[in-house]
Order: sequence, then C-alpha cells, then structure tokens
Amino acid sequence: MDHNSGAILVLSGPSGAGKSTLLKEVINDIGECYFSISTTTRQIREGESNGVDYHFISTKEFQADIDDGMFLEYALVHGNYYGTSLKPVRKALKAAKLVIFDIDVQGNEIISKRLGDISTSVFISPPTLNELKTRLKGRKTDTEDVIVARLEMAKQEIQRISEYDYLIINDELKTAANRLKVIAQAARLKFADNEIDEFKQKWEDID
Amino acid sequence: MDHNSGAILVLSGPSGAGKSTLLKEVINDIGECYFSISTTTRQIREGESNGVDYHFISTKEFQADIDDGMFLEYALVHGNYYGTSLKPVRKALKAAKLVIFDIDVQGNEIISKRLGDISTSVFISPPTLNELKTRLKGRKTDTEDVIVARLEMAKQEIQRISEYDYLIINDELKTAANRLKVIAQAARLKFADNEIDEFKQKWEDID
Repeated sequence: MDHNSGAILVLSGPSGAGKSTLLKEVINDIGECYFSISTTTRQIREGESNGVDYHFISTKEFQADIDDGMFLEYALVHGNYYGTSLKPVRKALKAAKLVIFDIDVQGNEIISKRLGDISTSVFISPPTLNELKTRLKGRKTDTEDVIVARLEMAKQEIQRISEYDYLIINDELKTAANRLKVIAQAARLKFADNEIDEFKQKWEDID
Repeated sequence: MDHNSGAILVLSGPSGAGKSTLLKEVINDIGECYFSISTTTRQIREGESNGVDYHFISTKEFQADIDDGMFLEYALVHGNYYGTSLKPVRKALKAAKLVIFDIDVQGNEIISKRLGDISTSVFISPPTLNELKTRLKGRKTDTEDVIVARLEMAKQEIQRISEYDYLIINDELKTAANRLKVIAQAARLKFADNEIDEFKQKWEDID
C-alpha cells in the first residue's frame, strides 16, 4: 500500500513572524500543495479571481454547506458570509496534496479536533517580542496603533504554543526554512484513520 | 534561542519488519544519536562491553534508581534486574542527541506518557502478514514454533498502530528509508515542555 492521501500542515504565528517568506523558501521542496483560501458569498471584485483570492459561491450554496457541516468556521460580515470550507480541502486531500492553512490559534484548535489524524501544526515565532516590534515598524505598513494591537495579540498567541506539534523560532532564515521543510515533508507521511483501519483489516489476511 | 536539547524517536514493529536495516540506511543523515540499551545487574559476560550490550550496574544502584523513579520499566529475571533506565537517556538528551528506542507497543505507551513532549513514535510494518511470514522463514534463524508466535504477536501489535505518530510500511527499502529519515529529522525539532515554558517567559520581556 502506498501513501496516496494528502495531509494537512497548519501554520500559525504573529504577523511579522515571517510565515510567507519561509513558505516561499521551501515550497519547491515539499511536493504538491494547496493553500487553503476562504470561501465567501460577497461579489467578486475587479482584479480578483475565483479560487485564488476566495472561492466565490452563492448564499444558497454557502447555507447548504453550513447545514452539511462543511465549514470549519464561518461568519456573517456586512451581510456576506466568509468561512473556511472543507470542500476544497477534501478535494485537495483526495489529490494527495499537502493542504496548508495559514490560520490562528483558534483555527488550529478546530482543525486538530476535526482533522487531527492527518494534521501537523507549526507555530512560527520571531525570537523575541522586541524583534517582532522592530520588524513590524520596519515594514512601515502598519500604524502605531495597529502595531501595538499586533504585539498584544502575539503575546496572547505565544501563551498557547504548547498546543502545536512544533515551534519554529524564525531567527536565522535558512535554519528556520530547513526546519519547516523537514516538518512539511514529515507531515505528508501522516496516515488518515481510515487508511490505518484499512491496513489493519488487510493485515489479517494470510494464506 | 537555538534548539539544543535532544529528542526521542521510538521505533516499534514486528521482528522481520526491517527496523535495523532501515536504521542503518539513515543513520548518517539524522545527526548524533544514542541507541537506548537496557540496564542490568547481572554479571558481565566475556565479549560483552559495558555501555554497548548493557549498562551493568550493582543491585544497590539499581534499587536506588527504582526508588528514584528512573526506570521506564524493569523486571527481575532469575535473580537479576533488567530494565530501561532514564539515566543514560537523560545524559544523551542533555548532549542534544536523538535517543532511539527499539521497543514494543507497551514500551511506547510508557514513553509517550512520561516523555511525550519530546518523543515521536514510528511503527514499522512489513506490507502484509504473508510477506512477514516469507521474511521470517527466509532468514532461517527461527523454528516453525517461533515463527508462528512472532506472526501472532505481529497481528496483535498491528492492532495498536493508531497509537503511533507515523506508520512506515516497509515495502520498498529506499522509499521506507527516506520516510524514516524525514521523520527522524523532524523528531529532533520537538521542544521539551520546559523549553516552551522558558520561551514563553522570555517572550514577555520588551523594552
């Protein structure tokens, strides 16, 4: 039996931890991936693509998927639904892809409850709060207020890192990237519970 | 903060699954290792070396270590103690080594209870029971009775593979070895609970 089903890699960590940079570094070494994107009922805007920015679906479809328990989480914002649907995730898993979630601590909690058998979680952290402050100030995209809020959120998230399978301290890019690569490669090797059951059953057969 | 503490890799699987062959294949690619060996109070025999075949210690020392909760498991056999001591394990972990246990399902249960934060467990299995039978007969080291007993034990162990982090089906040596390599490399990246606590505390500091 080969290992043909996909698996899940959850990445969490404060804005400024370097998740995207690390992912870019390793993306060519970890096999076929699918980046989980949100599903929404809002109108598609100019310059956006379906399946790239969001999965755009109708409200009727969204509600039916809610009823089918397809959403890991969802919210109604200004009359439009937004959520993380299992539909594209399942499709990617069937195609043996590594599904990557960039999601917060709450999101990881939900995924590990519902898909824990095939999911590996990694918390990516800057080495220190000071370093995070420096990085956030350096990229000049956030106001002082936003930076203060991000630092506060980071402080709270860090308190929950023991809920993760791995912690990567993004101090030196090459080292951190190499660690992420190894973890992502190992993540692919997780078997789903149903595969394990199948293997157990087949195992009983003997001439 | 660099990751300087060691970690644990538990390997289980029936005799004939190919654990030793796989380990030999990957040993040069997974950094410094320490293979856990048993501790005993029996006399050292000719040709044996302390620290290679067993850790040979006195009965007094063994009993003191039992009292200190140092043994993952132990048994008294024909008046001699045998057991798996945490003493050499802790020493190896301090030296940032990957401690490898070749241990059964019960052993893995104990390790994951006591050292779960830094341990990764792998069940190595032949592809089928028939294949295991063929391999055991082929190596001509076991009597027919022993083979029957080994197959029966394998059947029982396979029923508990869901207790392991990973399953490697040793069908094709190179594929299986590559999987073990990746898992062992990832295993090294586990942080101990006390390291996580230290990181959390340090994180609070900000100018």
